[in-house]
Amino acid sequence: MNTEILAVGTELLLGDIVNTNAQYLAREMAAMGFSVLHQSVVGDNPGRLKEAVEMALSRSDILITTGGLGPTDDDITRETIAEVLGLELELDNEALKSVEEYFKRTGRVMSEVNKKQVMLPHGCYVLKNDWGTAPGCIVEKDGKTVIMLPGPPREMKPLFEKRAKPYLEKYCDGVIKSVTLREFGIPESKVQEMLSDLMQGANPTLAPYAKSGEVLLRVTARAENAEKALEMCRPLVEEVKKRLGDSIYGENVSSLEEVVVRKLQEKHLKVSFAESCTGGYVAKRLTDIPGSSEVFECGVVTYANRIKHQLIGVKNETLAEYGAVSSQTAEQMSKGVRELSGADIGVGITGIAGPGGGTPKKPVGLVYISVCDSEHCYTKRFILGHGSSEGEREHIRYLAASNALDMVRRLIDGLPIE
Amino acid sequence: MNTEILAVGTELLLGDIVNTNAQYLAREMAAMGFSVLHQSVVGDNPGRLKEAVEMALSRSDILITTGGLGPTDDDITRETIAEVLGLELELDNEALKSVEEYFKRTGRVMSEVNKKQVMLPHGCYVLKNDWGTAPGCIVEKDGKTVIMLPGPPREMKPLFEKRAKPYLEKYCDGVIKSVTLREFGIPESKVQEMLSDLMQGANPTLAPYAKSGEVLLRVTARAENAEKALEMCRPLVEEVKKRLGDSIYGENVSSLEEVVVRKLQEKHLKVSFAESCTGGYVAKRLTDIPGSSEVFECGVVTYANRIKHQLIGVKNETLAEYGAVSSQTAEQMSKGVRELSGADIGVGITGIAGPGGGTPKKPVGLVYISVCDSEHCYTKRFILGHGSSEGEREHIRYLAASNALDMVRRLIDGLPIE
Repeated sequence: MNTEILAVGTELLLGDIVNTNAQYLAREMAAMGFSVLHQSVVGDNPGRLKEAVEMALSRSDILITTGGLGPTDDDITRETIAEVLGLELELDNEALKSVEEYFKRTGRVMSEVNKKQVMLPHGCYVLKNDWGTAPGCIVEKDGKTVIMLPGPPREMKPLFEKRAKPYLEKYCDGVIKSVTLREFGIPESKVQEMLSDLMQGANPTLAPYAKSGEVLLRVTARAENAEKALEMCRPLVEEVKKRLGDSIYGENVSSLEEVVVRKLQEKHLKVSFAESCTGGYVAKRLTDIPGSSEVFECGVVTYANRIKHQLIGVKNETLAEYGAVSSQTAEQMSKGVRELSGADIGVGITGIAGPGGGTPKKPVGLVYISVCDSEHCYTKRFILGHGSSEGEREHIRYLAASNALDMVRRLIDGLPIE
Repeated sequence: MNTEILAVGTELLLGDIVNTNAQYLAREMAAMGFSVLHQSVVGDNPGRLKEAVEMALSRSDILITTGGLGPTDDDITRETIAEVLGLELELDNEALKSVEEYFKRTGRVMSEVNKKQVMLPHGCYVLKNDWGTAPGCIVEKDGKTVIMLPGPPREMKPLFEKRAKPYLEKYCDGVIKSVTLREFGIPESKVQEMLSDLMQGANPTLAPYAKSGEVLLRVTARAENAEKALEMCRPLVEEVKKRLGDSIYGENVSSLEEVVVRKLQEKHLKVSFAESCTGGYVAKRLTDIPGSSEVFECGVVTYANRIKHQLIGVKNETLAEYGAVSSQTAEQMSKGVRELSGADIGVGITGIAGPGGGTPKKPVGLVYISVCDSEHCYTKRFILGHGSSEGEREHIRYLAASNALDMVRRLIDGLPIE
């Protein structure tokens, strides 16, 4: 069934926010086997919204809208869609009760205008919103299905996942299942080359997605049930793993930091970081993961040389002779923070994130990372970044943090750190 | 002039990537005074692309496309638009030379398929691409303007900024200028209420955008030149500032962390952080800002109680009697890290970011933040989060970091920290 995603909101047309909702819904719908053929955005303008809805209903089976369900005069999605479909809006008592409960639960006072949000098209299926005040709804008429979701992603996502998705399942013929593999260390173009013959299949399919120095590889199959679909994925998953080897860091995992936390938990190991150019980014990413407190002892952000010396014992002579950005300093940082904290693994990161501070000998993007445990110490030199000025500092810092996490993963698993 | 942005790419319809190009172009075009009334996305499908182009040309004066300019068979934007406009594609020798140079410069070999990229519509204005291989172009016909840009943001942005924008200036009648104010501390709904009468104007306009606990307020005016437009903004800017008082943290600034770094630089002050629940997030955000090394002494992430005691001298009795998440611990953290580092300002943050670890007395979202200098120490208690499970840990950590940065700002400026 052909699907169309329509976002309603002048803030999108003005470029004030990015339409991440469209991506989320497109991916979710594709994974369920629906073809998304159009995405569009219109503002809070009744005439143009009406045209867009009519157009969508003329060419698609399912229309999903996001936004325009709020309580203000600018919120016109409900009214406009009801008008196009020739339906009356009615106060939905169930929805009203649930909004009242939401206000009570969050300790806020419900105002009269919020009642507008529970005026829903006659005969619709209400999507109860436990994450905000605007309920969504699904309307079916003349063989078309319209799903209205609120705009804020924090409400839209759970509302889709928990309420709309189960409803849509009746339209799915067969089940689509995916296995994702995540790879770090081999450049995207090389991965493409190594796997190009595997990307020709129709069921299962293999698709690569590069992002921030990593490649996500998704193997997808369609079958009569979930078990069978996953079974069909298996041989392709194994072949990809075989070809890419230990640069595959996980299957169905969300991130390098998640994998590092889980591995540390399994082996009852603790880690500590001494960060210079990443300025706390590694600690931040590790502690994004719930449960990281079990494995994370201590992080120090030693921006100043004095602190590098005083806190984690980097020798003043080393700083003077080799500089703060050197393999020698990185090594002393990893050993120093390990000793200071009593952790099993110490990590030291020092480099030049830019935009200033680079020299011909030590350019922006130069980063040294050192990891050590009681027996080994590995220190690597990197030149990071893509050489453009756009977002370069963030990119270098992110890649440095990723490489540090990957070196910890390799140390834990006894994999080569060359 | 009405503008429409059309992105071409199946990867967008599958939700593999987010359409950040649309946001960038929408913002740029709006700032130049063009009305963007539609954004849409279609896949690499000739029939649907043709329909989308025809539709756009029927309702808009300017069509900007992104994507589909590459060398493969999937790249069909040039052909399709030329067909709709009734123009022939021709090999453009200038463009060919420039692509050849690009390959030489980046040390790569140009293949025969790359020649496809320089087949451009007859009579077009070529947008030379110094950042990649696919040139863009502008075609004018029958009063309509079509601008074709490549898909990768790293090429699209400079190509638009440096090549297409100067071309478009001939269409601008008058100039649009904006002043942005950023506010932290007053909830969005309250800000709306306090400013609602000011949001009715047409020129200048005032528009609020809420994001992650902050409100961005944009004042925009159109006039014959930039100076006059900014002058027209001024009274409204001042009125907003008067009403929201010291919760306005900056004018035309990008973030709280940027303001804090600039204020510290101006006053030659240094800051240090002791973070528990934020796990390095405050240090990370501060060091996102180039130049932060001048003002940032040292950060410690003291996840474990032992480290809180050993490294920054939080008393074991305090931890035992009041717990790690308490105003007493926060205060000793801020004082301890200030002493350890010798910084002018110390900050301590301790709390429960969840999802686990909460109790009825100390729920998830409870955070204590303490800031101190040589004379004062202020400690505040917060209950953060929006009460949903989606993204809650990230949200709590982000808000805790924002509040810490805001308390530092207030301490520097001698503003009340109640």
